Amino acid sequence: MKEVKIGLLGCGTVGTGVAKILLERSELIRSRVGAKLVLKNVADLDRETDRGIRFEDGVFISDAFQVVDDPEIDIIVEMIGGETIAKKLMMRAIENGKHIVTANKALLAAHGNEIFQAASRKGVDIGFEASVGGCMPIIKTIRESLVGNRISEMTGILNGTCNYILSSITETGVPFADALRKAQEKGFAEADPTLDIEGFDTAHKLALLSSLAYGMELNLDDIYVEGISNIDSLDIEFAKQSGYTIKLLAISKFSGDSVEARVHPTMIPSGNLLSNVSGSLNAVSVTGDAVGEIILHGYGAGMMPTASAVIGDIVDIARNLMLGISNRIPGLSYQPQNIRKIPVKPMDDIMTHYYFRFSALDRPGVLARIAGLLGDHGISIQTVHQRGRDAKGAVPIVMVTHIAKEADVMNAMDQISSLDAIADTPVLIRIESDDMD
Amino acid sequence: MKEVKIGLLGCGTVGTGVAKILLERSELIRSRVGAKLVLKNVADLDRETDRGIRFEDGVFISDAFQVVDDPEIDIIVEMIGGETIAKKLMMRAIENGKHIVTANKALLAAHGNEIFQAASRKGVDIGFEASVGGCMPIIKTIRESLVGNRISEMTGILNGTCNYILSSITETGVPFADALRKAQEKGFAEADPTLDIEGFDTAHKLALLSSLAYGMELNLDDIYVEGISNIDSLDIEFAKQSGYTIKLLAISKFSGDSVEARVHPTMIPSGNLLSNVSGSLNAVSVTGDAVGEIILHGYGAGMMPTASAVIGDIVDIARNLMLGISNRIPGLSYQPQNIRKIPVKPMDDIMTHYYFRFSALDRPGVLARIAGLLGDHGISIQTVHQRGRDAKGAVPIVMVTHIAKEADVMNAMDQISSLDAIADTPVLIRIESDDMD
Repeated sequence: MKEVKIGLLGCGTVGTGVAKILLERSELIRSRVGAKLVLKNVADLDRETDRGIRFEDGVFISDAFQVVDDPEIDIIVEMIGGETIAKKLMMRAIENGKHIVTANKALLAAHGNEIFQAASRKGVDIGFEASVGGCMPIIKTIRESLVGNRISEMTGILNGTCNYILSSITETGVPFADALRKAQEKGFAEADPTLDIEGFDTAHKLALLSSLAYGMELNLDDIYVEGISNIDSLDIEFAKQSGYTIKLLAISKFSGDSVEARVHPTMIPSGNLLSNVSGSLNAVSVTGDAVGEIILHGYGAGMMPTASAVIGDIVDIARNLMLGISNRIPGLSYQPQNIRKIPVKPMDDIMTHYYFRFSALDRPGVLARIAGLLGDHGISIQTVHQRGRDAKGAVPIVMVTHIAKEADVMNAMDQISSLDAIADTPVLIRIESDDMD
Repeated sequence: MKEVKIGLLGCGTVGTGVAKILLERSELIRSRVGAKLVLKNVADLDRETDRGIRFEDGVFISDAFQVVDDPEIDIIVEMIGGETIAKKLMMRAIENGKHIVTANKALLAAHGNEIFQAASRKGVDIGFEASVGGCMPIIKTIRESLVGNRISEMTGILNGTCNYILSSITETGVPFADALRKAQEKGFAEADPTLDIEGFDTAHKLALLSSLAYGMELNLDDIYVEGISNIDSLDIEFAKQSGYTIKLLAISKFSGDSVEARVHPTMIPSGNLLSNVSGSLNAVSVTGDAVGEIILHGYGAGMMPTASAVIGDIVDIARNLMLGISNRIPGLSYQPQNIRKIPVKPMDDIMTHYYFRFSALDRPGVLARIAGLLGDHGISIQTVHQRGRDAKGAVPIVMVTHIAKEADVMNAMDQISSLDAIADTPVLIRIESDDMD
């Protein structure tokens, strides 16, 4: 029986899950893979926490560099996170000819071009299924199953924290701050939730998916990112009344010469499958010219679901090691020489539907002024509702537009905001819907 | 640039889709795989039909045996279907050391043990992603992504014809015969729809999934199969009123020493994601100890979605050929020596919830008699509704039970059927719900 030796860097939540599966499911894995996966070392500075695992003597150590320099170790599982020490360890492991498995989307989205090139030069593999969508095999699906498709569009709910918060506001009507606090209490949000709620984590994932699907160089910087911290329960309520649900979506579309890549709160029709993805669940829809639309749905985070994806990657590499091969599938889905810089479309050029909420003083002619300014910018209104006065005495005017251009919308918003009769900054939420014209 | 040579047997709907992708997407595939996939021969007896493809001279031939005997061909794509000639060709191709890609679930479910053993002996690979769930990568997900999980349960909508028919009855209230006719007109059902509507096609797929997930020998014969041809629009309507949707489900559960494997019309709560899978779409849910529940959703049939899955398999094998390896992943997911006979639980021992509809003559004491007989068999009633008289003057009595044992239910049904006051054969539909007790 062949053995594959694994070094685990970082034994936090997911790392602990990985260690558990490797130790407790070794018989199951052996019966499927035909090899023994040996967890040779686990490196973590925290030796005090009880992880519920009995490691054999000498397995648990403090020095991660010792693990990446150990000539016996075949696969390094990087579960430290962050972009500094994790990158240093990863580059050194690659230099040492070790294969890598990681869930570190922040690192790969920011430095992936360099990392994947180094890996390709050294002939080592990088598995990163766990970095997007937790347990869902979205990377494998794009890299392998959909290889005969021109992928044209991806839409995903890729951050469990945001989805949990938005779901609780939708279900109970609590304000954002309360929903965030509840998410923190339940362990669905970090003490500092910025990376999640401001959309950055989702953008990291979208950068990776876009690169894999379209054969483009990783480009995190040009992704438009807007988080959910300004979402008002009022808009969720209005959305619901109009048959929409608000989700933080990662949206990516490929026209052949440019890519739309944006993360923002989005209204989607309540009948859409993604609108029914609630709590901390994730889902992603991929549209290709042969498959039509395919949707994956599952836990996007958490100890065991994420560990499940890590194990899938470890086993993929182990199967290669047993046969003495590597680089069977290119890391970023396309052969390195076929990866191009594909420009990200400027946000100004995006065409979509919009939901607006204006807070207007109850004066004659306000609606006419707003509608006039929208008309001046070529923005055509599909529906308009004027609601009863709110607590501050202002009147909420809610509008949904036909397809409009982002630049025109932004110009119109600027002018509408400066009207005397407008009491508050207008609210703008983009809409994704196949059924609208 | 390496070349991989492909021989396609059968150029019907899916075969044509495969040929189209190979010819029209060869540049895309090359940029991802780094190899050229060459469609060397297409064999089909029908040389008249215009398939919208211009094959080069000498590519399209009549004799499939010439293709499987051609020493230049690396991969045989079997798209003929059926169990006789397809099996003969497949076994001969394996004997000749050729790898196989097929969508033939009927053949694999019935003769897979023999076929996979032969393939393993000859060191050739069999790709059959397209045989279950069309474009959805369910086989890859089970064989590769979920390799660290003990899979305990799978529930799937795996037949587009049945789902289309049930969806149209649910949406429009038309009788079964009309819904079937509409499905046939639209090309969603065959002229002879037996294989689909009687549940056999779904059973073939369930046999394959169960084997892959649990490491069991293929066992089609012991799967309980009940189709949708007796489904009455009345029950769909009653189900809807009680918050349920009726779907033809493939259900498989693994306890460690036996497997539940059954195909039958099933009531599921309308909030369940599977209940929202409509028309000809498919979906499958897999529960594992690490991932929790994961759901895949997409087109389960049709030319291009199915062809997309076939291409994924061809590419997987092509990647192996380029590196001079094979049998990287065992065909039935577990190493051949670890595949066991796992008994299928007799249907009598199944425990689930039940929906009954009795057609009772409007006489005093009928409800008491029915309830009494159910009670005698230890079947406890959760809800009961007596509806208004139907056209024939009988009164429909609708019941939902707590968890009960199939054998007890069948005995009670026998006795209730023979009551004088029962006008018609009672209707029984099983319920799957996590929320009930």
